[in-house]
Amino acid sequence: MTEQTIAQVGEFPLIDSLVAPLSMGPQVQLGPGDDGAVVTIDGSMVVSVDLLIENSHFRRDWSSAHDVGRKAIAVNVADIEAMGAQPLTVVLGFSTPASLPVRWAREFMAGMAQEAQLAGVSIVGGDTTNGEIISISVTVMGQTAGLAPVRRDGAQVGDEVAYVGRLGYAAAGLDLLMHGIGWLQPGEGAHQRGFDGSTADAARRFQHDVSRYRETIESQRHPQPPYGQGRVAARAGAHAMIDVSDGLIADLGHIAQNSGVRVNLRSEAFIIAEPVRAAAERIDTDPMTWMLTGGEDHALVATFAPGTVPEGWTVIGSVDAAAGPDAAGSAPMGHPCIMVDGQQWQGAGGWTHFSS
Amino acid sequence: MTEQTIAQVGEFPLIDSLVAPLSMGPQVQLGPGDDGAVVTIDGSMVVSVDLLIENSHFRRDWSSAHDVGRKAIAVNVADIEAMGAQPLTVVLGFSTPASLPVRWAREFMAGMAQEAQLAGVSIVGGDTTNGEIISISVTVMGQTAGLAPVRRDGAQVGDEVAYVGRLGYAAAGLDLLMHGIGWLQPGEGAHQRGFDGSTADAARRFQHDVSRYRETIESQRHPQPPYGQGRVAARAGAHAMIDVSDGLIADLGHIAQNSGVRVNLRSEAFIIAEPVRAAAERIDTDPMTWMLTGGEDHALVATFAPGTVPEGWTVIGSVDAAAGPDAAGSAPMGHPCIMVDGQQWQGAGGWTHFSS
Repeated sequence: MTEQTIAQVGEFPLIDSLVAPLSMGPQVQLGPGDDGAVVTIDGSMVVSVDLLIENSHFRRDWSSAHDVGRKAIAVNVADIEAMGAQPLTVVLGFSTPASLPVRWAREFMAGMAQEAQLAGVSIVGGDTTNGEIISISVTVMGQTAGLAPVRRDGAQVGDEVAYVGRLGYAAAGLDLLMHGIGWLQPGEGAHQRGFDGSTADAARRFQHDVSRYRETIESQRHPQPPYGQGRVAARAGAHAMIDVSDGLIADLGHIAQNSGVRVNLRSEAFIIAEPVRAAAERIDTDPMTWMLTGGEDHALVATFAPGTVPEGWTVIGSVDAAAGPDAAGSAPMGHPCIMVDGQQWQGAGGWTHFSS
Repeated sequence: MTEQTIAQVGEFPLIDSLVAPLSMGPQVQLGPGDDGAVVTIDGSMVVSVDLLIENSHFRRDWSSAHDVGRKAIAVNVADIEAMGAQPLTVVLGFSTPASLPVRWAREFMAGMAQEAQLAGVSIVGGDTTNGEIISISVTVMGQTAGLAPVRRDGAQVGDEVAYVGRLGYAAAGLDLLMHGIGWLQPGEGAHQRGFDGSTADAARRFQHDVSRYRETIESQRHPQPPYGQGRVAARAGAHAMIDVSDGLIADLGHIAQNSGVRVNLRSEAFIIAEPVRAAAERIDTDPMTWMLTGGEDHALVATFAPGTVPEGWTVIGSVDAAAGPDAAGSAPMGHPCIMVDGQQWQGAGGWTHFSS
């Protein structure tokens, strides 16, 4: 049986069938179907856009459509959270070859709808069009609702640095997969792998791996940002915040540079989560490398006045005055000013050096 | 001299150089450079997204980058106007091959910035990424500022139907070009053509054509929506409104169907603009076909209670009760209910029939 493609169904019936199951939040005055959607915004609007391009950000033979849909929402909502705002609505641009199986589009939308529900956002509109590859554009809008947006440039000397959410999960999951441990994706368009190459009692050991490494490997397929914690940080008066998309060091570097400060991290303050520790033990590596440099988990990291860090956040360091190359107190140009255990961070490969 | 490509410049310097010249309106609290932009919204937010995909919506050898940029803003702002709202801000998703000449990206942004200024919107953020073809996503956000949004489904029996903006310009321009009259694009990535194939005194006659047909041919390159008139219609209490992207008949059909009414157009009520009349005379055709069926000019068409049509709008018909197949007063399913001079519209090719 050949699969039904978008060319066979037609664009308008496809849109109707994709949009019909979506539920709208109470802020949505008018959803899809008119020239624009109408949404109640209480206070200032916060907006962010992200593109997901086939073969650049995902491959159809590596990721399930459902995971791509979940990721498309998650990474973008995390940007709104990182401003301390409440995410509300999403509009979607979806360009696809006409040869795309309708099932892919449906599963993609199901993934988006599932993640949208977790994140508390409504998908209120979109544009579907034809193109040679799949291009996905997700714009998320939120509201500050009276609180000041939390920017990257507000960190102050004396602040405590804290994070909430997952650190190192996605990097650990990727490392497991690269060591042949675990599975990428059960079902359609997927690779199902046993343990270290599927020999003798692979099935039983596979079950063991599934439960032990599920969380890290699933984090590699789509992130699980700490929804709602952006608002928690804003209410606590966070001075600066960012979501960890490229790695903790890299993203804290943006805060340090934009704020003109130096960030001191204490490695012993990090809490190594059990799934990350299990992965590190399995492949005999130091989990701190993943936590300091691994991206794609979209934790939130923020700086707070001493004593104002919200419950559930982990304090991992502090902010002091930037020491420039001339020690004159200005931020050094061109590189982030991050110290780990009292030494300047030397780049992605540097952690092993410090920890030994 | 080979042209500098995006691969040579790098993504971040490119973004910086593209974003730096943008000016921000007074509503913009925080522009590009953080996790999200922050914009003051007074009342309800209206949002719309459009995709422009290379080789589907434009070709680099047919359209200049500047025109693609202008069009990207114009077609999307027109959607916000069509809701009766005030367009405020734009976020841009821009995916491109690394081999793209930097000049293309700069001219595209210059076109966007020019049109954004005309439309009164600020470009507050974006995402730039790598992809095999150029994919452009434009999300426009506006505000209703206390007025009710004007939907497609509000037309009432007895309403007057009126439009503002250009009708038939882009279709006339395309027809001229297809007859070898005029020029597509002076300069880069362009076709420069003389008059009917560039013979003897082509240059002099080309100058004549440039001035006589400039407006229609330029309309074919990028639309010129009637910015601000959406708010004018909303203030006048318009019952239903849409922008003419696919053609007047087709788009009024959406209003008729969604409102459950019938629209009667009077061909003698249309004002045939001089540039459209000139084009029609030149290639000996009926300009009403362009005005009734030509798309891409993004005029606004709306229905108003009798006597409330705003100044500058042209009344072209009225709304009466839909006569279903069973004449029971319900809208016929599956096709628009548009009458022209008392006869049911028979499709795109039908106008010549009625006018003869």
